[in-house]
Amino acid sequence: MSRPLILITNDDGFFAKGLLTLIELVKEFGDVVVVAPDKPQSAMSNAISLNKPLRYVFQKNEGNVAYYSCNGTPVDCTKLAFNVILDRKPDLLVSGINHGSNSSINVIYSGTMAAAMEGALKGVPSIGFSLLDHDLDANFDVCNGVVKTIIEKVLDKGMIKGCCLNVNIPKVDPDEIKGIRVCRQANANWEEEFNERVDLSGVKYYWLTGKFKNYDNLEDTDEWALANSYVSIVPVQYDLTNYAAKQDIENWGL
Amino acid sequence: MSRPLILITNDDGFFAKGLLTLIELVKEFGDVVVVAPDKPQSAMSNAISLNKPLRYVFQKNEGNVAYYSCNGTPVDCTKLAFNVILDRKPDLLVSGINHGSNSSINVIYSGTMAAAMEGALKGVPSIGFSLLDHDLDANFDVCNGVVKTIIEKVLDKGMIKGCCLNVNIPKVDPDEIKGIRVCRQANANWEEEFNERVDLSGVKYYWLTGKFKNYDNLEDTDEWALANSYVSIVPVQYDLTNYAAKQDIENWGL
Repeated sequence: MSRPLILITNDDGFFAKGLLTLIELVKEFGDVVVVAPDKPQSAMSNAISLNKPLRYVFQKNEGNVAYYSCNGTPVDCTKLAFNVILDRKPDLLVSGINHGSNSSINVIYSGTMAAAMEGALKGVPSIGFSLLDHDLDANFDVCNGVVKTIIEKVLDKGMIKGCCLNVNIPKVDPDEIKGIRVCRQANANWEEEFNERVDLSGVKYYWLTGKFKNYDNLEDTDEWALANSYVSIVPVQYDLTNYAAKQDIENWGL
Repeated sequence: MSRPLILITNDDGFFAKGLLTLIELVKEFGDVVVVAPDKPQSAMSNAISLNKPLRYVFQKNEGNVAYYSCNGTPVDCTKLAFNVILDRKPDLLVSGINHGSNSSINVIYSGTMAAAMEGALKGVPSIGFSLLDHDLDANFDVCNGVVKTIIEKVLDKGMIKGCCLNVNIPKVDPDEIKGIRVCRQANANWEEEFNERVDLSGVKYYWLTGKFKNYDNLEDTDEWALANSYVSIVPVQYDLTNYAAKQDIENWGL
């Protein structure tokens, strides 16, 4: 088999330390093409650009890594990579490493995970990696072994159809990691708190913020794993059907 | 019980015909507060604004309907409504009526459905409505009976925890509707085709487009229902865990 072709993207943008870290960790596994947003695109979820044209710029080749930036969302980057930039379908898509958690409910807002979902939709084994540290200059050392172990396994095992992996890594020293746990998404939510300010014209404006609320402390959840120094892996799907509810609603007599 | 309080939003923006149609249909059921994006926000998915401040403008009161516009995404609108604008938690959230389909895979890109998901996250019965017609001046007549029937039922039955309803309505004459079917999300996808153009500086740019591919013609899917002149209802959840894959991956020996 030829060397694997690996597509890398992220949502923190082309210059993010997490992206550069991921490239370093992944390039030993195959030839790498990076197609990353030219500016931060955090919390863009699965957003796509229907009303503005997309552009991409070839930045450089460095060894077996080709770098492109794109003016779109993470999902735009992924679609453009598959359709325009890449010569063939990649063997693996990795997204991240995100600066900050994409565990539990964060997954639905995450651009990092949306890119991984997009890979899954195209039948490519796809993984989103996130470190529980928002700092622009976060220390990603704890990710090194974890990322390599999981990529090796996915290249060996392939991926279950219709899903991708949401990998979150706790902010601990590398020797404090207790292991890797396969989890379900915890039932958690954000309680919004808008920070109200007044601009120079006397008009109010608001910064979205919030308190994270975890309603689900069972040991099979990603939140439990992360709080206990485990790496969490949640297999994430794009079939959003709630099958139990489907049965209930069939009895509503609509 | 006091009159229900109903929150309305959409992703096509404050001036969309689909929104105005929905307001007309819903206002007989309760007091209505509209908080809609001040510009089109189609395909924004669950995106939220972390890096720009949000603003909202009270536009007018008309009978039992209060109108607000907001400079954010559909999910921003929803969060701002719950936290800042509304006096109390609404009894129902309705989103739409979207100009265009949100069936099958479209659900993951949809701003309309993201707003409904956000309502579900806050424990409010939530419904996204979409008509299979992109036209700005689409004829929404076929929606009238459907929207009222489903809202009546949801106000009566409540909603299953952790999910909201994705209602799609075929573009047919009102008397051609065969009924309402509770469905699962069809396994379908977009095959991208980027339309390449060259700007006045000789630089290429791309419009995202694509061909819709349905790989799943079984009769329990939303695509089947819609193709056969039924209204489709898919109960949509925000727990993205693939439980079958979780079991498989537990055996990978990570």
